[in-house]
Amino acid sequence: MSFSLLPREEKFFDLFEDQAEHICKAARIFKELLGAWDPRSPLIDKIRDVEHESDIITHDIIDKLNRTFITPFDREDIHELATEMDDVVDLTQGAAARLQLYKIDKITEELPQLAGVLLQATEALKNAILSLTDMSKSRRILDYCIEINRLENIGDQIQETGMGKLFADHPDPLQVIKWKEIYEITETAIDKCEDVANTIESIVVKHG
Amino acid sequence: MSFSLLPREEKFFDLFEDQAEHICKAARIFKELLGAWDPRSPLIDKIRDVEHESDIITHDIIDKLNRTFITPFDREDIHELATEMDDVVDLTQGAAARLQLYKIDKITEELPQLAGVLLQATEALKNAILSLTDMSKSRRILDYCIEINRLENIGDQIQETGMGKLFADHPDPLQVIKWKEIYEITETAIDKCEDVANTIESIVVKHG
Amino acid sequence: MSFSLLPREEKFFDLFEDQAEHICKAARIFKELLGAWDPRSPLIDKIRDVEHESDIITHDIIDKLNRTFITPFDREDIHELATEMDDVVDLTQGAAARLQLYKIDKITEELPQLAGVLLQATEALKNAILSLTDMSKSRRILDYCIEINRLENIGDQIQETGMGKLFADHPDPLQVIKWKEIYEITETAIDKCEDVANTIESIVVKHG
Repeated sequence: MSFSLLPREEKFFDLFEDQAEHICKAARIFKELLGAWDPRSPLIDKIRDVEHESDIITHDIIDKLNRTFITPFDREDIHELATEMDDVVDLTQGAAARLQLYKIDKITEELPQLAGVLLQATEALKNAILSLTDMSKSRRILDYCIEINRLENIGDQIQETGMGKLFADHPDPLQVIKWKEIYEITETAIDKCEDVANTIESIVVKHG
Repeated sequence: MSFSLLPREEKFFDLFEDQAEHICKAARIFKELLGAWDPRSPLIDKIRDVEHESDIITHDIIDKLNRTFITPFDREDIHELATEMDDVVDLTQGAAARLQLYKIDKITEELPQLAGVLLQATEALKNAILSLTDMSKSRRILDYCIEINRLENIGDQIQETGMGKLFADHPDPLQVIKWKEIYEITETAIDKCEDVANTIESIVVKHG
Repeated sequence: MSFSLLPREEKFFDLFEDQAEHICKAARIFKELLGAWDPRSPLIDKIRDVEHESDIITHDIIDKLNRTFITPFDREDIHELATEMDDVVDLTQGAAARLQLYKIDKITEELPQLAGVLLQATEALKNAILSLTDMSKSRRILDYCIEINRLENIGDQIQETGMGKLFADHPDPLQVIKWKEIYEITETAIDKCEDVANTIESIVVKHG
């Protein structure tokens, strides 16, 4: 029988893994939603549910932080990680909500591409989080972070292409305003993955 | 006669409390301004004055930080708190300035609601700051932070409703652009209250 | 012969100085580009090159951080500084890219003014970075940071004037949307200089 000295630390990692799963799940449903867009799709409510669950996990992490003396890494880093991971889910849900709010009829070519990049970024994020339990894998963790940086650059380019087309194709300024915002929210979700990656890098670097 | 070992620390708290007062004051005047909107209202200059005073307090805090050896909590947290609190006032003033700059005639239904939420958030913020002097009240401080999180969600919903109506009611894209920005600045002021709350949470958590 | 105990630390400062040079260079080319605007100007590619070089320096800093035991200041501050400095170059390049993407014909009066303020902010930033090697100059470093804060305020005012004129002069909403974004990206580059200044202040304050 093995005996663990750090039962509470493992609990933190469990919560972060759970949160990482929710981030991926929200991104996966968002991509699915765009694949067969319907403003009355039940998937919109499903993302909202994932977002609510993610809020609860965030509060659990912060609550636990207040009741735990020894933490696996600096308290403020746990706090920042939890807050930033929550932001990714919020923004994914926000993008889906705007599509409905703005009564979007037809999805552009670029949005599903951007959602695909977001999904890849969330998966790299989950892998980085899963590797955090073992700091000896710091090289691998940093590779995931570099991958997220790379994806964020691709996201920027897709958004740029999308914006260029918008002005070329749509003479309707209201459509331009709506789509600009939807692209921006989705891109910000990817940006937030990069923020999480930066926080993870910073944690690894401290323990380096 | 009581003797204080920490005269300088109290000074920091005094400055933060003063800054918190200014945040509330700016939000209160902003709400008042919207209640009887007039692009030539003297209240617009009054918010600008509050913003200037707030800048001076921020510089005082950072100056003091450079001349003080022992601080009540980590130096970088004092710095971050001061910077973020200043942002709230800047954004409140920015929202008022845009109303004037964009020659807004008539205030929407949603902006005063959003200003009301901002005022509530600044008041919860002030309470959290006032409680920081006594870390034994950490549970109460965190409750104020949760309250600010809740208000930020309500703010998001009001902004969403406002944006939805804007596209439904206004066929004029220029009006949509103006109002979108005014909503965004006001919402960002509330977001910044949440950032301050996150920093406060992080401070409490470190001393937990 | 003098013997240095801290060869690795100096290396960090070299990289930061190199990064600061790239920030100034990107801002200088951007200002030059606007002085003789041509959507086919080779200067647009030149900024892109500076941005690529800046990315490499950022990765070098983070790589070095993972291979270095003793660092001149806190590891997480080095990480934050590197990330934020990279953002300034990215945004400068982003502003230039949008001018091309949006097929801008004629540059407004305000954009070159804003680019001038950005250039001044990057130069103050470089001076602050150069002074970081000697903490006894903390007063001077903080003066550069105050200067960047001042420039950021001027930038805000120019952007405000530009936005006001846009709505007054252009009845074309598509032009308003394009210019609003270009102003915002340029202003965010100046904001990021302020973020770097805040991080520098925070480092000085910790060692105060």
